[in-house]
Amino acid sequence: MAESIYSNYPPDLSPAQQKFLVTSVKDWAIQNGLAVRPSPAILPTGADSNGVLATNAPVTLFPSPFPRVCFEEATALQEIYNKLYAMITCNEEWLGKVVEGLIEVDDFVSNLWKVHLDVQKEGYVQNLSLGLFRSDYMAHVLPTGAPALKQVEFNTISSSFGGLSALVRQMHTELLASPPGSSINYPPHPLLQSGVPPENTAVETLSAGLAAAHEAYGVSKSTPALPLCVLFVVQETERNVFDQHAISTQLKKAHNIPVFRVASVDVLDQTSIPSSNSARPLLYQPPHAPDSTFEVTTVYLRAYYAPDEYKSSRDWLARTHLERSAAIKCPTVLNQLSGCKKVQQVLAEPTGPDHLASFLKGVDSTLVERVRDTFAPQYDLSINSQGRDLALNPETALNHVLKPQREGGGNNVYKSDIPGFLQSIPESDWRGWVLMELINPAANAQNVALRNDGEVIRGDVISELGVYGTILWENTGKILHNEQGGYLLRTKGKEVNEGGVAAGFSSLDSAILF
Amino acid sequence: MAESIYSNYPPDLSPAQQKFLVTSVKDWAIQNGLAVRPSPAILPTGADSNGVLATNAPVTLFPSPFPRVCFEEATALQEIYNKLYAMITCNEEWLGKVVEGLIEVDDFVSNLWKVHLDVQKEGYVQNLSLGLFRSDYMAHVLPTGAPALKQVEFNTISSSFGGLSALVRQMHTELLASPPGSSINYPPHPLLQSGVPPENTAVETLSAGLAAAHEAYGVSKSTPALPLCVLFVVQETERNVFDQHAISTQLKKAHNIPVFRVASVDVLDQTSIPSSNSARPLLYQPPHAPDSTFEVTTVYLRAYYAPDEYKSSRDWLARTHLERSAAIKCPTVLNQLSGCKKVQQVLAEPTGPDHLASFLKGVDSTLVERVRDTFAPQYDLSINSQGRDLALNPETALNHVLKPQREGGGNNVYKSDIPGFLQSIPESDWRGWVLMELINPAANAQNVALRNDGEVIRGDVISELGVYGTILWENTGKILHNEQGGYLLRTKGKEVNEGGVAAGFSSLDSAILF
Repeated sequence: MAESIYSNYPPDLSPAQQKFLVTSVKDWAIQNGLAVRPSPAILPTGADSNGVLATNAPVTLFPSPFPRVCFEEATALQEIYNKLYAMITCNEEWLGKVVEGLIEVDDFVSNLWKVHLDVQKEGYVQNLSLGLFRSDYMAHVLPTGAPALKQVEFNTISSSFGGLSALVRQMHTELLASPPGSSINYPPHPLLQSGVPPENTAVETLSAGLAAAHEAYGVSKSTPALPLCVLFVVQETERNVFDQHAISTQLKKAHNIPVFRVASVDVLDQTSIPSSNSARPLLYQPPHAPDSTFEVTTVYLRAYYAPDEYKSSRDWLARTHLERSAAIKCPTVLNQLSGCKKVQQVLAEPTGPDHLASFLKGVDSTLVERVRDTFAPQYDLSINSQGRDLALNPETALNHVLKPQREGGGNNVYKSDIPGFLQSIPESDWRGWVLMELINPAANAQNVALRNDGEVIRGDVISELGVYGTILWENTGKILHNEQGGYLLRTKGKEVNEGGVAAGFSSLDSAILF
Repeated sequence: MAESIYSNYPPDLSPAQQKFLVTSVKDWAIQNGLAVRPSPAILPTGADSNGVLATNAPVTLFPSPFPRVCFEEATALQEIYNKLYAMITCNEEWLGKVVEGLIEVDDFVSNLWKVHLDVQKEGYVQNLSLGLFRSDYMAHVLPTGAPALKQVEFNTISSSFGGLSALVRQMHTELLASPPGSSINYPPHPLLQSGVPPENTAVETLSAGLAAAHEAYGVSKSTPALPLCVLFVVQETERNVFDQHAISTQLKKAHNIPVFRVASVDVLDQTSIPSSNSARPLLYQPPHAPDSTFEVTTVYLRAYYAPDEYKSSRDWLARTHLERSAAIKCPTVLNQLSGCKKVQQVLAEPTGPDHLASFLKGVDSTLVERVRDTFAPQYDLSINSQGRDLALNPETALNHVLKPQREGGGNNVYKSDIPGFLQSIPESDWRGWVLMELINPAANAQNVALRNDGEVIRGDVISELGVYGTILWENTGKILHNEQGGYLLRTKGKEVNEGGVAAGFSSLDSAILF
């Protein structure tokens, strides 16, 4: 069924139709903040020294078909996934064992773990954690032709594109539905007449999570009491700012919460923890209003997720500084570590203890099995293991991807590259990697992308569905807030192996369910 | 009073404060479509061959103080001004006399008049006209120090910046009001704590005018009936597109009206009037949907206002083609001609027939006098006239500006340049020009502008207030819709004589009333 749905989609565009759609999309994007700052690659050096220029985010001209059964299953399972990763984070002993196996081979994991140990030694002063998660999937085509939901990864830090993906959904919906009653923006096609992409509440969901944490923080821990705020910690050279602004605007407007942004390099200069206050409130002094001091209820990290963001010990100091404060972290170091690929792989192990069931104690067992059904086969590379055999055999390697512990694209090794890559690194480092069976997406899906340099590319694509969820919990395991809402459809050209939209080689999309 | 208000405004900005405000404004602008396409001047050649880049519209960092009494008078008089220019347009004989005095010296006026005569010969088929007007003023400082409202010009075609000025008002308001209860975005200053800029309903007002015309057009004049639409006729190389999109989006969303855009160069290719239909409906065939045909109820011109837009006889043909159609024109050729400076000058003549009172027959005479009070002294340059004396005397010239019939900036001659300019052109051409006494704005007003190349400029400024109004009338003089709403505050550096925001040498602003 799926194959036939894709076979004549999207409809062909005449030059006039393409020109109209591209112009409409380009203008809609800027009118509505579906934008990014341009990368240096698309601008001559020095062309925008004041950093004022913007361009459309990379988007598809058409929404992509996506199997309804997979979309609905992903949203149905999100709150259980939220709970699973909260419970993993609460179980420091279990998580510690997984992490300890990585410490020798992965400096980044090792340094994160050290931050946790340092703060633990002093004693944590905040027992609440906030997760703004995104669980990423593909619609795997079974040998029968039926689609099955398979998880690619689970993001526990800086889950991005909630703001922009809601805008892409709005844009496709307006294009599909105007002029009212007689849409002519797209050439006629049954899929495009079958309805509009499902509602996308990512902005509302993510900001409601932050608002729940802000509320749960309670009153100021300072004397005299200080005004409270949420602090976004961001990368100094972030180009995906409008995605973040969509969430902060909602926090300000719908929840009436003061929100500030601080670049990770400025954390130690602009925030402080008074040594005289054992409650360790995190104080923020805006450089533009040095007479004002705010107390940070919630630190939302849109930085600190990748090793190259820690250029010196000062960056690790800053991360530790935030971690030891009384602010609710989104995420804590432990919660960030729960996103390691190794955790996903251990959960998916077909033999040994049933970790999944123990973390989801109390959850209906059929739901637990539905979560398990989303796991793709994945393996460690220990001696004499099945994983090692599959990775080193050039034939079986073709059906796999090798992943480090990092979230986000750009680090994976694919297919025929795997055996050679493994032989090029010390065998002792192999345990830092996880081998995952490749998911088999619809073979003949196509779409047309408008890149952020304005180039239009039509071709074979793979779509990845991310579902957003937020959860606020106590380290005792008590859950205060647990919601799912909103999605990202990310569609990449098939010749491209990675899915990092920000890097410009894939596009934001929305879903037409079938 | 006014002088002291301006003397310590705006407050000084520390480098950190300026950096914060500039970053906030740059990002807010792109997030909300307060944007323009960059001019070639700020981009290296070939840097954006696909035309995807955008930048913030030029804006002030602070709202500018503006006398409340002048603001309220301007809004109170707008509907009377709407009526005045509708009545002038209805009085073809009177308008024809004014225009005939210009025909020999002004090719543009002459050609527009010819379009009217051609269509008149054939017979008009549409007795409704739509005006989307903007009346521009300055707050003139009287010798007593009190402010008085003085009109600069009255725009009857392509009155722009309604969309963007509403956004500037929203931006300044959010900056003034956040975080809620303890705004720290600006340094403290009494004016900035005194409230927010008045509501700006320009988008709602202008689109309601277009919707009223669309409604009044009635049913399709085609057999079989065709779907109806509004058509925006725009310049092919327009950079101020987001200002226009703000209005078309409102028309689509709030009024459910299909809106299309056609570049003026494509008018003859994409629209037609079937010769078999004596009702002369204007049909629009979207190139991206060649099987669809729409009937245009209303042609909204955001083009055809300047002589250099008519490159060949084909452009005049296109304008005539629109004019002879059954679509309601915003504006008609006659209504465009009513915006000639000469009309303004004849209305302001202190001696001779009271044209103003006759056009406003039935309007309360105190209101008529309030309209008259907004006229600045202005003169023609006929032989032995006061105007000629004032213009040629280098001393009195210093207090004047010389204007051609054109709307918009870029064509005026100022002060000491006037005598020399007049002597450089044939005396027979002098009657194409109007001499206007310079308005005396507050001497010490200042603001800080963020240009669209990101440069930040602080300096002495002059603010010009434009008030929007829309009117729909029959050529019998019957008025079907008459509303005012929304404003533009345009603030320019004092060393700059012209007010053309689109050209980049002045900024969009909003008003803090005092």
